[in-house]
Amino acid sequence: MIIDLRSDTVTKPTPGMLDAMMRAEVGDDVYKEDPTVNALEERLADMFGKPKALFFPTGTMANQTALKLHTNPGDQVICDSNAHIYHYEGGGASFNSGISCKLIDGHRGMFTAQQVIEAINPPDFYHSPLTKLVEIENTANRGGGSCWDFEELKKIRTVCNEHHLGYHLDGARIWNALMAKPETARDYGQLFDTMSVCLSKGLGCPVGSVLIGDEEIMQNALRIRKILGGGMRQVGYLAAAGLYALDYHLDRLGDDHQKAQDIAKVLSGLDSIKSVAPVETNIIIFELKDKNNDAKFLNTFAEKGVKLSSMGSGKLRIVTHLDYTNEMHDKFLSVLKQL
Amino acid sequence: MIIDLRSDTVTKPTPGMLDAMMRAEVGDDVYKEDPTVNALEERLADMFGKPKALFFPTGTMANQTALKLHTNPGDQVICDSNAHIYHYEGGGASFNSGISCKLIDGHRGMFTAQQVIEAINPPDFYHSPLTKLVEIENTANRGGGSCWDFEELKKIRTVCNEHHLGYHLDGARIWNALMAKPETARDYGQLFDTMSVCLSKGLGCPVGSVLIGDEEIMQNALRIRKILGGGMRQVGYLAAAGLYALDYHLDRLGDDHQKAQDIAKVLSGLDSIKSVAPVETNIIIFELKDKNNDAKFLNTFAEKGVKLSSMGSGKLRIVTHLDYTNEMHDKFLSVLKQL
Amino acid sequence: MIIDLRSDTVTKPTPGMLDAMMRAEVGDDVYKEDPTVNALEERLADMFGKPKALFFPTGTMANQTALKLHTNPGDQVICDSNAHIYHYEGGGASFNSGISCKLIDGHRGMFTAQQVIEAINPPDFYHSPLTKLVEIENTANRGGGSCWDFEELKKIRTVCNEHHLGYHLDGARIWNALMAKPETARDYGQLFDTMSVCLSKGLGCPVGSVLIGDEEIMQNALRIRKILGGGMRQVGYLAAAGLYALDYHLDRLGDDHQKAQDIAKVLSGLDSIKSVAPVETNIIIFELKDKNNDAKFLNTFAEKGVKLSSMGSGKLRIVTHLDYTNEMHDKFLSVLKQL
Amino acid sequence: MIIDLRSDTVTKPTPGMLDAMMRAEVGDDVYKEDPTVNALEERLADMFGKPKALFFPTGTMANQTALKLHTNPGDQVICDSNAHIYHYEGGGASFNSGISCKLIDGHRGMFTAQQVIEAINPPDFYHSPLTKLVEIENTANRGGGSCWDFEELKKIRTVCNEHHLGYHLDGARIWNALMAKPETARDYGQLFDTMSVCLSKGLGCPVGSVLIGDEEIMQNALRIRKILGGGMRQVGYLAAAGLYALDYHLDRLGDDHQKAQDIAKVLSGLDSIKSVAPVETNIIIFELKDKNNDAKFLNTFAEKGVKLSSMGSGKLRIVTHLDYTNEMHDKFLSVLKQL
Repeated sequence: MIIDLRSDTVTKPTPGMLDAMMRAEVGDDVYKEDPTVNALEERLADMFGKPKALFFPTGTMANQTALKLHTNPGDQVICDSNAHIYHYEGGGASFNSGISCKLIDGHRGMFTAQQVIEAINPPDFYHSPLTKLVEIENTANRGGGSCWDFEELKKIRTVCNEHHLGYHLDGARIWNALMAKPETARDYGQLFDTMSVCLSKGLGCPVGSVLIGDEEIMQNALRIRKILGGGMRQVGYLAAAGLYALDYHLDRLGDDHQKAQDIAKVLSGLDSIKSVAPVETNIIIFELKDKNNDAKFLNTFAEKGVKLSSMGSGKLRIVTHLDYTNEMHDKFLSVLKQL
Repeated sequence: MIIDLRSDTVTKPTPGMLDAMMRAEVGDDVYKEDPTVNALEERLADMFGKPKALFFPTGTMANQTALKLHTNPGDQVICDSNAHIYHYEGGGASFNSGISCKLIDGHRGMFTAQQVIEAINPPDFYHSPLTKLVEIENTANRGGGSCWDFEELKKIRTVCNEHHLGYHLDGARIWNALMAKPETARDYGQLFDTMSVCLSKGLGCPVGSVLIGDEEIMQNALRIRKILGGGMRQVGYLAAAGLYALDYHLDRLGDDHQKAQDIAKVLSGLDSIKSVAPVETNIIIFELKDKNNDAKFLNTFAEKGVKLSSMGSGKLRIVTHLDYTNEMHDKFLSVLKQL
Repeated sequence: MIIDLRSDTVTKPTPGMLDAMMRAEVGDDVYKEDPTVNALEERLADMFGKPKALFFPTGTMANQTALKLHTNPGDQVICDSNAHIYHYEGGGASFNSGISCKLIDGHRGMFTAQQVIEAINPPDFYHSPLTKLVEIENTANRGGGSCWDFEELKKIRTVCNEHHLGYHLDGARIWNALMAKPETARDYGQLFDTMSVCLSKGLGCPVGSVLIGDEEIMQNALRIRKILGGGMRQVGYLAAAGLYALDYHLDRLGDDHQKAQDIAKVLSGLDSIKSVAPVETNIIIFELKDKNNDAKFLNTFAEKGVKLSSMGSGKLRIVTHLDYTNEMHDKFLSVLKQL
Repeated sequence: MIIDLRSDTVTKPTPGMLDAMMRAEVGDDVYKEDPTVNALEERLADMFGKPKALFFPTGTMANQTALKLHTNPGDQVICDSNAHIYHYEGGGASFNSGISCKLIDGHRGMFTAQQVIEAINPPDFYHSPLTKLVEIENTANRGGGSCWDFEELKKIRTVCNEHHLGYHLDGARIWNALMAKPETARDYGQLFDTMSVCLSKGLGCPVGSVLIGDEEIMQNALRIRKILGGGMRQVGYLAAAGLYALDYHLDRLGDDHQKAQDIAKVLSGLDSIKSVAPVETNIIIFELKDKNNDAKFLNTFAEKGVKLSSMGSGKLRIVTHLDYTNEMHDKFLSVLKQL
């Protein structure tokens, strides 16, 4: 039994999901004739209370398209210094959109409205990049699956309005935030201009993200998706997995969160571990006492059939997910305790 | 019965292909752990005699990645004035790679080695873009599914060698060229540095293209695919369709070609039609006598359940494919004859 | 005595111009505090009847800025297949703006409104680049200093209005067109959204071009100039040359045109020459009978102290200018006659 | 008497410099035929012990060209979080080169070799941008004219070598660093691959910067300068100012530094001022006790004919320079003391 806790992206479709995929009615989505893709897009648009949604092969492409829709080359997007768009999209913000990131040193991947105000460049001072967009990630991956305070998100919306800035949500793990917090999908829809939501992490689909947004800003989304090479044909097989996951995999995310709490608790008691970051959802980030010990630590677990991932300098990450069963959980906890 | 002859992209998986998809073993391809994707990439690399192959969500992304791998911003790629990369990739050559196209007015989408020589800018004359790449499309879509003369392709290879230019094949319909001509996949592999081959046109897969190339140039392909947002997760379901198609759908392409011939023959005899371009594979391009009559002509057929597509100014296109059955063929020919 | 007829860019300031430069009052133009630059910008804006003008170090940067102001990455600009922006700006349209050129095969660098209509991509067909701008060059350099018919330019304006396209004039040699044709600078100002005019060709200044345009489109020009690195400091010395040239060098352009006529007449009678293109302004393009003879022909003249330039494949170019004196003219004509 | 201490860019040529400019022998620098430009380039190349140098209209363009020469789109450059290339070049790094900045929170605009090591992304981890270049600014403008420790610069060179990174110096105020520190221009030449040096700040020229570097990396500099629009014609007038300044304005920089010390001393004693940053060269950065008081403070001085500049949030900047005379100095000090 291999226990893979590197990421929630490693899940494979359940038999039920696979069955739904294979029964999907498909068509050529380039002509927008795939009924399953159309159904998924409509469902998610409705769920978040927005007029438009578009299916993408990856969350990276959904985010990159959003950045492009909000900006022109030379512009600047305000984001946390731990943002996925800055660290893990291959430099795409600059490559695809010619823009730069104004980094805020936030707390666990999150920042305040006041910090946004201070990060805005004066629009007439043309020596500095023109600030055009605020981007937040919820939950924040490198923040340890942390959840934003919705009141702060509202204050940032006000700042965006006052300074004519767009507001984009990287919702790669928005489902986990929705599970952990009282706000609804529609609450998020009312706040943001655009949102990417991922089907392949907590929801357990094999592939796919969806960009959701307002009519005007989404007008050009199809064109950008085409240019980046994301206009697929009979892709309803993948969309069907998304529809299935929305029916059957949303409510169970609490399990992942509980397991993460269990793991954090055991980790906190271990001698070799310096600290465990607060766990709010399905991500546990912890630090080794010996910051050069990553590789050895990973190997110890690999030998026992457990895969974790390193973030460098003694920081490690564990992510719980749909394919991390109760049986695996028991085994992993006992492995941990024996450390 | 709807007869859809707009494109060979409209096909849906056969039961056999769907079954192969369902039974696919998958993994997280971002970690290169999807065995089915890996198998497809290895099979195609081997088939064309190249060391490397990489799966892409679309042919556009495979081509765009190839352009990027061969060039730097400001460079120029030589291609036919009818090239797909110039007309139908949303301006991606400039958007993604910052390059321009030096257009050759070829014959049916094809040009000569001599024309390539004349299109090369002197490398020291820095006022003109630096020529870096020659791109050809085989079969040529806007050329009417025309097939390149392999001897001319070899001569162009020699020109590329002499002028230190890359050589890329847009093989969206290379399978049709391989069916129509005596050369083998390996012959093409020996000639080109990079080749995109499409699984979703003649081969009948729902989604996917593969970029095949030499070790050094492909080194950065994974990074570019990531940046463009093409790094999908458990995508083996789509790759499985590709493997199935290579087993079962290659040999049958001759049927599509024969049907195209049949259609062209009937079209040639129609009063309203000015000319029918020579048919070499599965594409028929013909011109109406009245160049403003596209819409009316399309409507006449639409009413009879037949979908064709217009290329503008009285030019129409028909494409035969896997889902265009013998029954449909008989019906369409009789509809044509009654025109 | 060296007779340099390679280009009208080789001129050096006259004593009068140099004196005006030396006496210029200057300031830091980055703060817009250089009175001489400001005066030149105001004078040219007024001359063409436009609200805004901005000084640039080169015509290439003025054109590149205009392209950027009119477009977004992926867009397309319609221009002649001989356009300077396509051939001689280093691929800058793609490098700086991420756009491509839709080339019209015009006549002597000029095209018709009907050709523009046919070159526009349908805006909803997102597979093709979005057409955003029409660019014309007057006089057309590679067209042989040809002058556009103003009525056709007006018709193109109407097409631009109907299709929501920008309209830019590359006026590197607009002064020659104004000399050769009855229209005034204000007539041009009424037609185009943006115009680049060059100070260093016919006008004989050492350096500089000015971009002139409407309020809204020029709003971002300062920012783009900064990004490209064109925001200079005490640059009034160069602007002073421009002001001087507008006073003293405009009316004399007829001399250059007359000399070009004289040269063309002699060339037409030479055995080794196949044809001489019609001469409308200060450029003479002619073709050798032996198309591989460029280098030899250039050498023959170089030995006699005359510099010409080759356009490749037996095509040669001669440009008359301020520093091409009557004495040089007599000598060159006699050299020609003795060929 | 207006005392302008906003920047050392506000200087105007002295009579001697103006005379040198007007006597300059010029030519068409696009053909590399301007003897004065060539002389300046050769002199600076030789001064820094490098094979190549190229004149640019601005330091921004020289830096932007260097960034482009070292990188490909998507790559990352390591620099201080206060770097000019990040803050004051209009977002050009992303616009012109498609790259992003990995920011180090250094001390007074300077960082350590260890910090560089920690900022390098693992080259095989393609989710993160590829690190390609380290950029440092000496003196550091936003660091308060601070001078780098040469030993640390050497250690960074070692890191660059080990990680195959380029090493660029933004030498906008390198002349001030050379005055303040024992190292020579050749010492810098041995360390860096490319260096931009500015003629219009401490040296007092009206316009111009020069990019100096190694043969191979500079090979493409002319092409990039052309694309950005920096290829000027008879620009020797500006180069002549540079040659003059190297003869007559280098040694006097100590005066500016002394005056800056004098000002800092008086400022330190003022009630309204919270702190004055250490002064090493010609820049004084100080903070008001009341961080919302910038505008009022600037106005108070403006009324007395003294121009300072604000960096926001109660931070102000004073820069001494060639045109800040002894008379002005006495007056400004007395104004300060009367505050």
